[in-house]
Amino acid sequence: LGRVLRPYLKTCAAPLQEAARAASSIFLCGSWKTGALLCAALLFMPRYFVFAMSACVLGGFIAKLMQLPTAMRKDGTLLYNVFLSALAVAWITRGSTLGLAAVWGMLGVVTVYTLLLSAALWHWFPLRAGLPPLSVAFVVSFGTLLTFFPHWAASTTLLDMGLPEEPALPFVATAFLRSMGTILFLPNVWAGLAVTLAVLMWSRVAMINAIVGYAGGILIVKLLEGCGLHWLGWFAGHNYLLAGMALGAVYFVPSWSSLALAFVAGGVAALHVAAVQHFLRGSGWEYLPLPYLLTIWSLLCCLRLREKPGSLLPTAGVFDNPEAAAAALALANARFPHRHETHVLLPTAREVTVTQGFDDKLSHRGEWKHALDFEVHDASGNACPPGCDDDLSRYYTQGLEVRAPGAGEILRVVDGVADNAPGGCNFASNWGNHLILRLDYGGIVKLAHFMKNGILVKTGQRVGAGELLGYCGNSGRSPVPHIHLHNQVTTETGAPTAPFCLTNFFIRSADGVRWNFAGVPKVGARIAPATVSTTVLGTLAHLAPGAATY
Amino acid sequence: LGRVLRPYLKTCAAPLQEAARAASSIFLCGSWKTGALLCAALLFMPRYFVFAMSACVLGGFIAKLMQLPTAMRKDGTLLYNVFLSALAVAWITRGSTLGLAAVWGMLGVVTVYTLLLSAALWHWFPLRAGLPPLSVAFVVSFGTLLTFFPHWAASTTLLDMGLPEEPALPFVATAFLRSMGTILFLPNVWAGLAVTLAVLMWSRVAMINAIVGYAGGILIVKLLEGCGLHWLGWFAGHNYLLAGMALGAVYFVPSWSSLALAFVAGGVAALHVAAVQHFLRGSGWEYLPLPYLLTIWSLLCCLRLREKPGSLLPTAGVFDNPEAAAAALALANARFPHRHETHVLLPTAREVTVTQGFDDKLSHRGEWKHALDFEVHDASGNACPPGCDDDLSRYYTQGLEVRAPGAGEILRVVDGVADNAPGGCNFASNWGNHLILRLDYGGIVKLAHFMKNGILVKTGQRVGAGELLGYCGNSGRSPVPHIHLHNQVTTETGAPTAPFCLTNFFIRSADGVRWNFAGVPKVGARIAPATVSTTVLGTLAHLAPGAATY
Amino acid sequence: LGRVLRPYLKTCAAPLQEAARAASSIFLCGSWKTGALLCAALLFMPRYFVFAMSACVLGGFIAKLMQLPTAMRKDGTLLYNVFLSALAVAWITRGSTLGLAAVWGMLGVVTVYTLLLSAALWHWFPLRAGLPPLSVAFVVSFGTLLTFFPHWAASTTLLDMGLPEEPALPFVATAFLRSMGTILFLPNVWAGLAVTLAVLMWSRVAMINAIVGYAGGILIVKLLEGCGLHWLGWFAGHNYLLAGMALGAVYFVPSWSSLALAFVAGGVAALHVAAVQHFLRGSGWEYLPLPYLLTIWSLLCCLRLREKPGSLLPTAGVFDNPEAAAAALALANARFPHRHETHVLLPTAREVTVTQGFDDKLSHRGEWKHALDFEVHDASGNACPPGCDDDLSRYYTQGLEVRAPGAGEILRVVDGVADNAPGGCNFASNWGNHLILRLDYGGIVKLAHFMKNGILVKTGQRVGAGELLGYCGNSGRSPVPHIHLHNQVTTETGAPTAPFCLTNFFIRSADGVRWNFAGVPKVGARIAPATVSTTVLGTLAHLAPGAATY
Repeated sequence: LGRVLRPYLKTCAAPLQEAARAASSIFLCGSWKTGALLCAALLFMPRYFVFAMSACVLGGFIAKLMQLPTAMRKDGTLLYNVFLSALAVAWITRGSTLGLAAVWGMLGVVTVYTLLLSAALWHWFPLRAGLPPLSVAFVVSFGTLLTFFPHWAASTTLLDMGLPEEPALPFVATAFLRSMGTILFLPNVWAGLAVTLAVLMWSRVAMINAIVGYAGGILIVKLLEGCGLHWLGWFAGHNYLLAGMALGAVYFVPSWSSLALAFVAGGVAALHVAAVQHFLRGSGWEYLPLPYLLTIWSLLCCLRLREKPGSLLPTAGVFDNPEAAAAALALANARFPHRHETHVLLPTAREVTVTQGFDDKLSHRGEWKHALDFEVHDASGNACPPGCDDDLSRYYTQGLEVRAPGAGEILRVVDGVADNAPGGCNFASNWGNHLILRLDYGGIVKLAHFMKNGILVKTGQRVGAGELLGYCGNSGRSPVPHIHLHNQVTTETGAPTAPFCLTNFFIRSADGVRWNFAGVPKVGARIAPATVSTTVLGTLAHLAPGAATY
Repeated sequence: LGRVLRPYLKTCAAPLQEAARAASSIFLCGSWKTGALLCAALLFMPRYFVFAMSACVLGGFIAKLMQLPTAMRKDGTLLYNVFLSALAVAWITRGSTLGLAAVWGMLGVVTVYTLLLSAALWHWFPLRAGLPPLSVAFVVSFGTLLTFFPHWAASTTLLDMGLPEEPALPFVATAFLRSMGTILFLPNVWAGLAVTLAVLMWSRVAMINAIVGYAGGILIVKLLEGCGLHWLGWFAGHNYLLAGMALGAVYFVPSWSSLALAFVAGGVAALHVAAVQHFLRGSGWEYLPLPYLLTIWSLLCCLRLREKPGSLLPTAGVFDNPEAAAAALALANARFPHRHETHVLLPTAREVTVTQGFDDKLSHRGEWKHALDFEVHDASGNACPPGCDDDLSRYYTQGLEVRAPGAGEILRVVDGVADNAPGGCNFASNWGNHLILRLDYGGIVKLAHFMKNGILVKTGQRVGAGELLGYCGNSGRSPVPHIHLHNQVTTETGAPTAPFCLTNFFIRSADGVRWNFAGVPKVGARIAPATVSTTVLGTLAHLAPGAATY
Repeated sequence: LGRVLRPYLKTCAAPLQEAARAASSIFLCGSWKTGALLCAALLFMPRYFVFAMSACVLGGFIAKLMQLPTAMRKDGTLLYNVFLSALAVAWITRGSTLGLAAVWGMLGVVTVYTLLLSAALWHWFPLRAGLPPLSVAFVVSFGTLLTFFPHWAASTTLLDMGLPEEPALPFVATAFLRSMGTILFLPNVWAGLAVTLAVLMWSRVAMINAIVGYAGGILIVKLLEGCGLHWLGWFAGHNYLLAGMALGAVYFVPSWSSLALAFVAGGVAALHVAAVQHFLRGSGWEYLPLPYLLTIWSLLCCLRLREKPGSLLPTAGVFDNPEAAAAALALANARFPHRHETHVLLPTAREVTVTQGFDDKLSHRGEWKHALDFEVHDASGNACPPGCDDDLSRYYTQGLEVRAPGAGEILRVVDGVADNAPGGCNFASNWGNHLILRLDYGGIVKLAHFMKNGILVKTGQRVGAGELLGYCGNSGRSPVPHIHLHNQVTTETGAPTAPFCLTNFFIRSADGVRWNFAGVPKVGARIAPATVSTTVLGTLAHLAPGAATY
């Protein structure tokens, strides 16, 4: 028998896993195991389980037929609105006198319609509105269904669904657990407990944010009640906790700031609940998670207007759970404190000494403080052999090959300025012979004080990283030959400088030579470019703890 | 008299043709002759004709004054909402006791407002929502009018408009023809018949899709009625048939799949009719084609989410009617089966032999199966003169000029790898000397196994089609000199390959030489580039049936 | 005491100025002085003043905490919705029995929510809808508040607010001034007069447009009343005058056309008022400036669809007031009549004679009329020394250096066509040796009739302005050596030409040499490029009246 059944079981496994992922997507969670537990919680009402699974199988089949994106089908994105709609159909028809054919026909129509709408909105929303559609397809299709059958909407407040009797708990705990259960149309403490445990298995941080969001919602409920407003605030608790979970843990990396956001989100959701209930009173739509959607959309848009992210950072990338996102961020901050800055390579192949650093005494000041000067010194720290201070050509840096600090395009070249005698300065031509290079990966770099006619590249030319750009000289405001390097905010000559850091270089010290992934060397540091592949080192750097030492 | 009238007639002809095009636009049809027939059908109610023509003349004048796009004015896009609004005004004021001035004032205000709104939405919708606005301006302006005058909305269900008495037909036929007439506010079998004939003159396929869409709508009406829902499903038939026609024949190329889509569209439109009637009951908006708009928008968005178009292809370009779109697609498929692939020219000017094809035994396998190897062979099929197998320089392919297979930009150049002795292979450097070229018209092409220092181009350089890139050699994993050509999905070295085909080349066979517009030659084929202009041949190829033979 | 208070006063000054800017933003005016006067007008109801200032301080603090853009906070964009909401709260709670804590709690919640929503919409609207959000955040948050407390909405029509007794004025004047006051929730003639004076201080043109917009609105009110429609048209006057002011003076540069637009805008706003009042009757939303928003959005979109701006130009840039915008436009039109055309430099460094101009007799005709031919002539106007007509090499223009008329990219180069003997023409190759150059600042320029092998640049190459492109010859349809220059609409060979003008050149006449910023020289003009910096001259040109003479 097993032999006969196995292929059928395999065929069934895929849609069941898709259904589990659909269930987990309701909580914005990507773990199908949590989804499986949520599906198991549906067994409080076996009718729910059967309807949800049937809808997912039908929905998956139609999605395949229509060649909707495989990834969206598999990760539950497309099907979770279908899943919710199926639960909704199971819920409103639970005490109905309708025939089996009518009920299953309704389930079929609702499933197909929800799937089509879900696909339409998953195309439209991210592309056109720049917002996640979340469960809006469910809200629209089920809201419409409630509009058709207003007497069902009227019966939705009745909680006598044959669910297990509830234990005596503090009112707040009962309300919270019921709200958890309500998300799966199971307004019952035991069901809510099952859902809570499933979510906890996935992420404790998410659950904390849910509780904080709920608290924020209840605070506003109390406040509005104090103003004499009567409404179904308690019933709509799922909006507060989902809003708290989504904004405090999923869309933003968990932190104290995001916890505060979860609280605010719960409060805003409560305001939206009150508004929606007044506008749509009696239409059945007042039970739907529309306030949750409005809250997510308005707060996401609001936070995108910020000038600086501060301590509230949007989650970048896909993580197992909020904890993993926070851990990844913390690790990245610890390992690569400079990673948001422009990265440039040392613009020479030789070992050089930093003779002026960031915000330094001489000329790297004010708006032009993010700049570095480099010279070649001998072992004794001299810029030229002793007694040759007057002979420009004896300076080690004169004629030094200057190389591109990254791939990019040459935006401007000024050449033809004469080299100064040692100690002299040309104040008429501040930068002397110089070039501006826009790096492909960000940054507008200026390299200055080239030798007269010492620049080999032309405006508009593309250069690769490390490509020879020209030869260092002593032109412009330069008493001794040196390379001036800075990063600037616009392409104009004289634009203010912007932070940057050198990448993939060695610093020589008394202890030996130490490799740096990125950093800004101090004055006097003797540094040299690491000639090994940045790709290899970048990859290794992710694996090994601490900074690599040569 | 004729002499006196002629200039006036000419001045009148333009707005009348614009009105005809406006009428045809209601059915998404670009033929002004069909529009003229539809206008003629208005003569069932001469009042309609006068109102519609007056509104089009006024609307056209204002559009000109405002310098709205000439093309949109002429093709009916801007005026068809005005046309419909004028019919609507004629309809609701048909039995009114309002004075002439009030009626014509209302017509004027509605015309101007509808035109302004139509222009606003034709700017906003395609640009911001990525969707066709269709008749949304009419819906909003006429819906508002009905809101102002609710007693008119109440009288809209009365069908006693003085239209000719209807013949005894089966109920479904009566309902369908009435729905056809309703689009022009003429809910009468005879008027519907006139409209039907006008549409049939334009396209029989469109009419079939209208009928199928209508059937889909009626099916859902029956189903919802089976669930106990009572509503005006029959009255809203124009939504089903317009949705079927639009999606089954106009927005998608007619095919069996699009016929199925028309059926689904009719059903979805019926669901939207039910929803709109419940939400807007008593406001007058329930008679408006809002469900048709919602259906088009949601299904268009839904189908745009698909990964692959399959057999349901969006109509590309402007055609006389759906039949012409289907014919053009069928012709294109028959003539240019490779037209969706990347097209590359043979990367040499010589006749070469294909020594390894797609998905071939040696190394073009798995993810790297879309690749071709070329060698120069003599008439006997040898790669070098007999007995010279050990002398690399005697191989015909060694030093062969390799030319750009299309215009584009050089993304990567690797040079300096030594050539192998014949029979040798350099497994340390798989590709030997090679380059990657991004083609302007799509495709990322790799050419490999150049001679040491044999590449003449640099990273970042632009090359034209046929430009000399370098000389073939025997570097990398290459036992005998050959050109390796493939197309890859990303710019990374080692990225999987993607399908492509050669274009504009000759294949020599026993029967002579045959020209190919595009194709993937088989192993052993002797091929040579066609040196004549691709523009000329491409143009000729469209005209002449069959493939050109040299 | 002053010493102790000074730092506190300084801390208070910033939020007070922000509040003044918020007040001025209501009238789309950027002057904080007008805003301060409007705030002073609030003192008719000291409660209003206190509420508005408190909300602005709280809102400014939260905006800072959230790192919302400093500029938007300072210019009133973010806070003016908060300002209006605070007035609204002061208004609806003016006669309420609610405790102080409830009222101030409500003010706090409304302020925070309005700020969040305002930020969300200022991110979303411009980016996604391409429209200004204006006061939509206020409409939504206050509309929701009215929905919560419908009895307040009912009391909003009562005008007995303890405002000063009104003087006996003509009905229209009373209505207009009340509408002006209503914007600050002060429906009283004296308050309206104060607001009017504040706006007049900023701009008389804006006030004229407000009056014209009001007139347009009242016309439609009368018209609809003539059709038997009863509604609160008079009450909603602020919509008409704000719409007139916004479209007639702020979004478009004031002109006779914009005055007409203000009239239309007032009328459209009245239609929207009627529609909104019917749709939202009894919800409280009918008193909100939603019709004003709908009017701005629909007319802005409508006018953006225009093909040509005509005399109704959108305001470009930020100006002190509409008068300044109109003056700046008038000055620019007078000084730079060619500024909307493509600007090209003379493609040579020598003085040349224009031998064929725009729309000229020989070959610059029809679609190719925007073209110029240049030759070098001697002082007597000869193209070569007398008697040398047969010797091509003696023509002054033969071998002339042709220089890039602007920075850009070479799109096409055709070279290798033989030079004609003098007097000959090569009809097989119309353009002879030529190149097409896409200018970075717009324009696709063709330069034709180069010497055989006389083009020095390659396809795909970037060139700077004035860079040497090649040497003039006598190839193609050219009987004597000359440079042909035109600007074309697409990159195709043979594409129609488009208007352009030469920039920064001298014209020599009997009176001397005159510098031209831009212009199209006539046939026979002797012109030479100005070699001085265009930046310097462009800057000077803005300062000095009239055209500079050399």
